[in-house]
Amino acid sequence: MICLVGFMGAGKSTALVELAAHGLHSVDADSLIEERAGRSIPGIFEEEGEATFRELEQEVVIEALADPSIDVLALGGGAVESEAIRESLAVDAHTVVWLEISAEASWRRVRHSKRPLARDENAFRALFDRRQALYDSVADVILPGVARRIWDRALEAVRGLEDLPEGTRMFWATSSGGEYPVYVGRELLGSGLFSAGSAALPGDGKSFCFTDGAVGPLYGERLGDLAGTITVPPGETAKSMVQLDESLREMARAGVTRSDRLIALGGGVVGDLAGFAAHTYQRGIPVVQVPTTLVAQVDSSYGGKTGVDLPEGKNYVGAFHLPSAVISDVDTLATLPEAELTAGMAEVVKTALLAGGTLWDEVLALEPGEILARADLVFECARYKCSVVAADERDTGLRAQLNLGHTVGHAIESVTSYERYRHGEAIALGLLAALRLSGAGPLRDEVREWNLRHGLPVELDPGIDPAAVVQAVQFDKKKTARGVGFVLLETPGQPLIDRPVEDAAILASVEELLP
Amino acid sequence: MICLVGFMGAGKSTALVELAAHGLHSVDADSLIEERAGRSIPGIFEEEGEATFRELEQEVVIEALADPSIDVLALGGGAVESEAIRESLAVDAHTVVWLEISAEASWRRVRHSKRPLARDENAFRALFDRRQALYDSVADVILPGVARRIWDRALEAVRGLEDLPEGTRMFWATSSGGEYPVYVGRELLGSGLFSAGSAALPGDGKSFCFTDGAVGPLYGERLGDLAGTITVPPGETAKSMVQLDESLREMARAGVTRSDRLIALGGGVVGDLAGFAAHTYQRGIPVVQVPTTLVAQVDSSYGGKTGVDLPEGKNYVGAFHLPSAVISDVDTLATLPEAELTAGMAEVVKTALLAGGTLWDEVLALEPGEILARADLVFECARYKCSVVAADERDTGLRAQLNLGHTVGHAIESVTSYERYRHGEAIALGLLAALRLSGAGPLRDEVREWNLRHGLPVELDPGIDPAAVVQAVQFDKKKTARGVGFVLLETPGQPLIDRPVEDAAILASVEELLP
Repeated sequence: MICLVGFMGAGKSTALVELAAHGLHSVDADSLIEERAGRSIPGIFEEEGEATFRELEQEVVIEALADPSIDVLALGGGAVESEAIRESLAVDAHTVVWLEISAEASWRRVRHSKRPLARDENAFRALFDRRQALYDSVADVILPGVARRIWDRALEAVRGLEDLPEGTRMFWATSSGGEYPVYVGRELLGSGLFSAGSAALPGDGKSFCFTDGAVGPLYGERLGDLAGTITVPPGETAKSMVQLDESLREMARAGVTRSDRLIALGGGVVGDLAGFAAHTYQRGIPVVQVPTTLVAQVDSSYGGKTGVDLPEGKNYVGAFHLPSAVISDVDTLATLPEAELTAGMAEVVKTALLAGGTLWDEVLALEPGEILARADLVFECARYKCSVVAADERDTGLRAQLNLGHTVGHAIESVTSYERYRHGEAIALGLLAALRLSGAGPLRDEVREWNLRHGLPVELDPGIDPAAVVQAVQFDKKKTARGVGFVLLETPGQPLIDRPVEDAAILASVEELLP
Repeated sequence: MICLVGFMGAGKSTALVELAAHGLHSVDADSLIEERAGRSIPGIFEEEGEATFRELEQEVVIEALADPSIDVLALGGGAVESEAIRESLAVDAHTVVWLEISAEASWRRVRHSKRPLARDENAFRALFDRRQALYDSVADVILPGVARRIWDRALEAVRGLEDLPEGTRMFWATSSGGEYPVYVGRELLGSGLFSAGSAALPGDGKSFCFTDGAVGPLYGERLGDLAGTITVPPGETAKSMVQLDESLREMARAGVTRSDRLIALGGGVVGDLAGFAAHTYQRGIPVVQVPTTLVAQVDSSYGGKTGVDLPEGKNYVGAFHLPSAVISDVDTLATLPEAELTAGMAEVVKTALLAGGTLWDEVLALEPGEILARADLVFECARYKCSVVAADERDTGLRAQLNLGHTVGHAIESVTSYERYRHGEAIALGLLAALRLSGAGPLRDEVREWNLRHGLPVELDPGIDPAAVVQAVQFDKKKTARGVGFVLLETPGQPLIDRPVEDAAILASVEELLP
């Protein structure tokens, strides 16, 4: 059974109509309650109070959840407040779909309705905040509630979820350029996601794997039927025009057609290169991203930025090419070299700093190595990244927040010729500099402690000249179009973008990193 | 004065409202007529007949066209039937804008109106057909009548037209991916189109010229202020990944930023390569196409297909990247090597065959070399190409008609290793084969005569094996995704796409080309 949850105005009624049109027996729990009570819900609220309504709701919903004749059940916005209902939802046979809506959109939609809980805006927003965590806790799937005719595109993927390993979660990433499902879970490689006809595989052509020599041998066998495999050398040097040329030629010789798809299996380099190859091969074929590193699972696989480096600059050549699906199997993190996993933690802490709220709390409390068992955190990081992309796909403003820690981080990578530090390690140092520039001393201390605990660097190599780092910040040519602006952050969850910072302050923040 | 003409329902009233909002004194000729007559237009028609209305209209419109206080004048749909009005419109100070609409859309919009000429559908359509040629004959600018808020984007370009050389025409190309102005005329290089602040130059960054070693020295000086020039070797071999890599690096070293633009000056190779470089440089910067060959001016500059070749296949790597503007200066054709100009004529006759109607009649009557003085034909070919792209930007169906003659043409190029024939020459032969396969013998004879007159080949070299050509048709891997389908054409203006053809028939059509 598909169970729909979500706040007022999230589109549950529309979903019921659409799903009924797909031939599914679709039932509104509120109607069942009104039938049983013999009066309207506002009537029950007024005459018997909310508590009585909740009791009745719990009884009716739990009954309905056990009714095998129902294909789709829409729950009232508050039903998830009942622990008994949450327990019934957790049953394997139920796919719980959270139709998400923002507080603003919800209030706009219901303020003039007769809903008993939509009368006072402050109370409404408090209720909204409390319920978000409850919806999140029960949801197997998160869909944008207000997307037009979303079920025409998403139903197949939602239905497929019950055949996937327990605990698999999916959300629907949307932005102006398109939309795609993101799956996060365990044992996803080798699962039905890669079977013929899977909703995660676009089109009806063949699958070609695009991977590197380190990851391909480990997981290439678990991607279903492959018509061929394009393998590149592991490491950042593969992100070059020469490698792109070679890979495109390999694709041509392997007989890839415009109906086929690439499955990008690997870390950020493979994802960037495969995505760019997919974008340009015969003017574009679909790519499914299957990230196998922490950085790629929490950040780089989403949003469609693809490309390669030039000797003149990193990521100087590329294109926007949204994936057709992203499949993040956290089990693959277990085979990551420890140093890679550690470096990836820098993107986790960066995302948590930007997102704030419970994600920040949970990441702050994270023990070293624990991430391997925390698909939920990977899921939340991915959702946050996609929410930023949704607001600014073409990278003209808001998306810049994702560069928190990257300005100084990139400069450190640059002055050390990309040899001394892994990207994540440089970002970890860059985060400390950015927090200092934000005047967020205590927060910087917290992140410093966290870095230490997780094995990330907190000090620059003594041989590095801070003045050279400042110079590299200014030299970063990509900045010239927009001026050198920093992402600052005084409080988790409240990034400030494009802030001017004086050179002396940058210098001091880098000098502070020296031992 | 901006003068708006167009058929019923084309959006003249909306345009008046939008232009008035831009602070322009915008006047509806029909209102002037009703004022003068003291009654409604349907009233004049009914009580005094159409002839009286036309007399009054002519008088009022010609007066208004001479009124310096009017910034914008919308003419009634039939006003262009008056020769006197057409003559008044031809005055230099008037920029005549044809708001174009299809017969179907117009009928849908006005069938239930009270318009006297919108009562019988057949008469309506006959009127529509007759007037199209009249609108075309007076128009300096053609805009899509039904595009939303088109004047917010197009007004600046329309206003700029009066400062351009006499006879310059512009149309607004639209498709799902975007829109851009297309300028066709003489002496456009060196004109205000390339001055700072020109509506044809996107953004407020710098211009970088992208050209080849043959064209750059001839015309590079006429592109306004350039911050740099990227030059590639002339010829098809420049359409390679290696050259792309080199050019992108040159752009990086020249300091091109994301705010800047490329101006692609040259033929199809430069346009394809520059467009692709623009698409991929720092994930995309704008490109203005300035085609200097006939093929590029009538065909390849429009529609956004860009890319390079792989040894494994032509155009195997690329992307869709719409130009921000196309500027076709037919004067540049005068410096084309004669063989290039001749080869380009094959795309002219192909386009005319597809378009049919008056374009076909005029191209059929064209004398050798006359094209140099016929910016009007270049304009019409470009418009036809863009109308096909508009209907099918991503090349999934309709756009395939543009491959008329290309299936066998490409095969001839392929079996001769792209050395014996220019692209246009091979297409000229391919057209003859396609017309034979279409069972259009007399039309084939007409095109054969035309080819002969214009110096295009009508016979294959005796050394070429027709069976090898048929094999190359089948080998064309890009076809495998969609099956081998031919574009056929029994009558000019009525292409049939994706038609299956038997090998024996292909063979016969190629054998017929042997001397």
